[in-house]
Amino acid sequence: MSEDSTREQRHHDRMQRKKEVIDAKIAAAQEERGILLVNTGNGKGKSSAAFGVVARALGHGHRVAVVQFVKSRSDTGEEGFFRKFPEQVRWHVCGEGFTWETQDSGRDTAAAQAAWAIARECLADPSVNLVVLDEMTYAFKYGWLDLAEVLAAIAARPRLQTVIVTGRGAPEALIEAADTVTEMGMLKHAFKIGVKAMPGVEY
Amino acid sequence: MSEDSTREQRHHDRMQRKKEVIDAKIAAAQEERGILLVNTGNGKGKSSAAFGVVARALGHGHRVAVVQFVKSRSDTGEEGFFRKFPEQVRWHVCGEGFTWETQDSGRDTAAAQAAWAIARECLADPSVNLVVLDEMTYAFKYGWLDLAEVLAAIAARPRLQTVIVTGRGAPEALIEAADTVTEMGMLKHAFKIGVKAMPGVEY
Repeated sequence: MSEDSTREQRHHDRMQRKKEVIDAKIAAAQEERGILLVNTGNGKGKSSAAFGVVARALGHGHRVAVVQFVKSRSDTGEEGFFRKFPEQVRWHVCGEGFTWETQDSGRDTAAAQAAWAIARECLADPSVNLVVLDEMTYAFKYGWLDLAEVLAAIAARPRLQTVIVTGRGAPEALIEAADTVTEMGMLKHAFKIGVKAMPGVEY
Repeated sequence: MSEDSTREQRHHDRMQRKKEVIDAKIAAAQEERGILLVNTGNGKGKSSAAFGVVARALGHGHRVAVVQFVKSRSDTGEEGFFRKFPEQVRWHVCGEGFTWETQDSGRDTAAAQAAWAIARECLADPSVNLVVLDEMTYAFKYGWLDLAEVLAAIAARPRLQTVIVTGRGAPEALIEAADTVTEMGMLKHAFKIGVKAMPGVEY
C-alpha cells in the first residue's frame, strides 16, 4: 500500500469510529419537545442567534413571537425584515432603551412589566411555536421582574413550544431550568477598535 | 429625602456616570467599514448568529451570499426561508456532510475547493454586502483549504463588505485577522439530555 492510501485508510477508520459514537448519541436522543435556550455572555451573537432560529422556524412554517425587553428603537434590520411576515411573526418592541439612558428605574420597571404581560400571553398560546424573550436577563439584574414567576410561566408552557432568552448575566436559576445554554464569550469586538456600529451588522 | 427617592437618586447618578463612559466610546468608534466576524467554540449559535445577521442585512436592503462548506442537506428551515428572497440572497450548499459520514478525504477536499471557488467570487463582488462562510473552519482543520490563500482573499475584499466565518476550532491566524470574534461556549445542550434535534430549532 502506498503512503497516501495508508493515510486515507487511517482517516477512513478514524472517521468510522467517530461515526459509530455519534450515531449512538443520535439514537439515544429521541424525546420530541420544545426546549428552553439561553444565550448569555458578553460577546456578540446572543440576539442574532435567536433571530437566526426565528428564520429557521419560519422556514418550517412555524409561528413566532419576539418580545424585546430593553430595545426601544424600531428601525432595526431584523424588525423591518421579520415584519414582512405578519401571519407568522408577532414583534413587540417594549423597552425604553438601556437603563443608563433612561436613568429612571420606575419607568424601566413599568416597561419590563408591560413586556412581561405580552410575553406571558405568548407563553400560554399553543399556536406559537417559538417565543424569543430578547434581553430579558437585564430585567432580573435590575429587579424589574420576579424570576420565580417567569420560570413558572416558562415551565407551564405548551409542550412543543421553544423559548429563547437572551442577555448578559443570566441568573443561575434560569441556567438551571434551561435545556441548552450558550455562553457567548467576547474574544474581540470591532467596536473596541474604533469601528462604528454598522447597519446590517450590529442592528 | 425618603429612602426611596434617595435610592432613585443613587440609581440616576450611577447610570449618568455609566452613560458618559458609553457615550465617549460611541464617539470614539467612527470608522465605517465592513468587518470580519468569526463565530467559533463548541456551543450552539455559531451558524444561527450568522443567519440572524443575514436577516438584519436583508432588512436594510443589502445583498447576501451564504456558502455552506460542510452541510449537504437542503431541507433546512433557514435555506427554505432565505430562498424566498432570490433578488437579495445567493445560497450555496456545497458540503458533502460531516467527514465522519463521507469517510473519504479526497471527496471532502474536492467539495471544499468547489465551495471556495464560489466564495472567492463573492469576496470579489462589491455588490455583495455580506458573505457568510458557514462551517468553513473545518476546511482548515482537515487541510482541505489553504488558510493563507483564504485570508488574502478576505483581506482584499471590497471595503464595505462584511464577512462571517463560522465553525469550531477557528485557527489562530483567522482570529488574528478578525475584527469581532465570539467564542460560543456550550454550558448545556438539549441533545445531551436526550432531546431529538427538532425542526425549527436545530435545522
